[in-house]
Amino acid sequence: MDLVIVGSIGIDDIKTPFGEKKDILGGSAVYASYAASFFAQPGMVSIKGTDLADEELEFLKKKEISLEGISTKGKNFRWSGSYEFDMNEAKTLKTEINSLADFDPTVPDSYKDAKYIFLANTDPDVQIKVIEEMKNPELIVLDTMNFWIESKKEKLLEAIKKSHVLIFNEGEAKQLFDTPNLIKAGKEALKLGLKAVIIKKGEHGSLLFEEKGLFNCPGYPLEELKDPTGCGDTFGGAFIGYYAKAKDIRKAMVYGSVLASFNAEDFGLNNLRKITQKDIDERFEEMKSLRSF
Amino acid sequence: MDLVIVGSIGIDDIKTPFGEKKDILGGSAVYASYAASFFAQPGMVSIKGTDLADEELEFLKKKEISLEGISTKGKNFRWSGSYEFDMNEAKTLKTEINSLADFDPTVPDSYKDAKYIFLANTDPDVQIKVIEEMKNPELIVLDTMNFWIESKKEKLLEAIKKSHVLIFNEGEAKQLFDTPNLIKAGKEALKLGLKAVIIKKGEHGSLLFEEKGLFNCPGYPLEELKDPTGCGDTFGGAFIGYYAKAKDIRKAMVYGSVLASFNAEDFGLNNLRKITQKDIDERFEEMKSLRSF
Repeated sequence: MDLVIVGSIGIDDIKTPFGEKKDILGGSAVYASYAASFFAQPGMVSIKGTDLADEELEFLKKKEISLEGISTKGKNFRWSGSYEFDMNEAKTLKTEINSLADFDPTVPDSYKDAKYIFLANTDPDVQIKVIEEMKNPELIVLDTMNFWIESKKEKLLEAIKKSHVLIFNEGEAKQLFDTPNLIKAGKEALKLGLKAVIIKKGEHGSLLFEEKGLFNCPGYPLEELKDPTGCGDTFGGAFIGYYAKAKDIRKAMVYGSVLASFNAEDFGLNNLRKITQKDIDERFEEMKSLRSF
Repeated sequence: MDLVIVGSIGIDDIKTPFGEKKDILGGSAVYASYAASFFAQPGMVSIKGTDLADEELEFLKKKEISLEGISTKGKNFRWSGSYEFDMNEAKTLKTEINSLADFDPTVPDSYKDAKYIFLANTDPDVQIKVIEEMKNPELIVLDTMNFWIESKKEKLLEAIKKSHVLIFNEGEAKQLFDTPNLIKAGKEALKLGLKAVIIKKGEHGSLLFEEKGLFNCPGYPLEELKDPTGCGDTFGGAFIGYYAKAKDIRKAMVYGSVLASFNAEDFGLNNLRKITQKDIDERFEEMKSLRSF
């Protein structure tokens, strides 16, 4: 067990200008774990409903992802969203929290020695509880979203301060630090005592802030995208997975961009489930030529 | 004379969250020529009003910019704009075209052998006229804006086809090729027979499309910006200036980003007029570390 990934397992209804899918598997822990599994052996900590059959998650085991930290209770978390023509932001049509409301994670003993933790977007109380259960984590990466900034800001800041890397998106960065300037927001975030701060900018790539300076990671140039759902979680999962393997934070972001680009090319996890290590390596090489001058 | 720069000379009123300035010198030809002058010797082709004293342009001559192609007539073109908190887009409060409406440029004989031409945003008819007056141009770079896409699309496409490089911004690219996807827009533009297409994305940098592949040029990370007016023209001017000097299209874009970042740090040309070659070289080096992985 290299790393622990905490987040949701969802059943999604997704509509984009390129089609509509109902009852497909999603959730931050699923996207992140699958992406991480190309580089490391993740263990999931999550909750699912009885309406999601165990067999639906079997393919994760084949990628050597541990499901030991998944509990089952009540009805599964469900999300329904749609994307407009520009595909930039999901419009949430409906959210049924269901069993995710009772998500009070217990980290299996077999996970507790893992050095790397990815806390995908969840309740900051849940994030803190997991951090406290781990024995000796080396790198804790925390993702969050506007909902927690608005409803639980103090608790969220507490969770961030217990982490090493904060990953959030452009809008959330501006909101949390009350500035329209991303560079200012990133530097402010760093002052919370973090080792690194990553701001995700969708198609425009991502920015890394460290004490020693900035890194600008481009987005992979994608001509055809069908469904961006889970791209942020895929980025985060590939990031921590590659970091766990090679301890290179910049390359980890580039792999994050590469995996997110594959994810956007089809609905749900369809395309991630098709790609090979060779596909990933090819896009990684392309990313080099994309930015050399 | 290395290159010819065609565009406007303006008198601007600018209001941003960081202050307000009235009657300051602006215009696409002024920003572009000043930026280009760090790398090459530009000659301006433009029109000004009698209400703009010749002395106001004296500082351009000190940068070895030729003013021979500037005619004087009537009242000067005036623009008044404001920026909101996010500084992303200017809101035009007032435009007085004045003598710019009669801009029927005659390229001085001493300019006609120049190999490089930057056609800043102007009427496509004006752009075509200049192209036809040049003897043997090697690289014609054309900038445009939504106004011409909406009002003179066919003429604009004709001007583009007579050029080698098209520079426009994100919104204009999506509008001209009727797609929300920038990669698709850039590739479509390339099909018009261009050698290269550059899409400017403001703080998110710019994209270069060539037959042989893409280049993603980051924006210089700026924490404090006071006035983005003229950044696009500054980018274009530095781009053609450096290209005229070194024939390296990718590095030319990076210098474009660097000069635009300096420009945004103060109102009008204030900061461009202060910086030295050393300042420019330092930011260019920073751009390298910003993207290495």
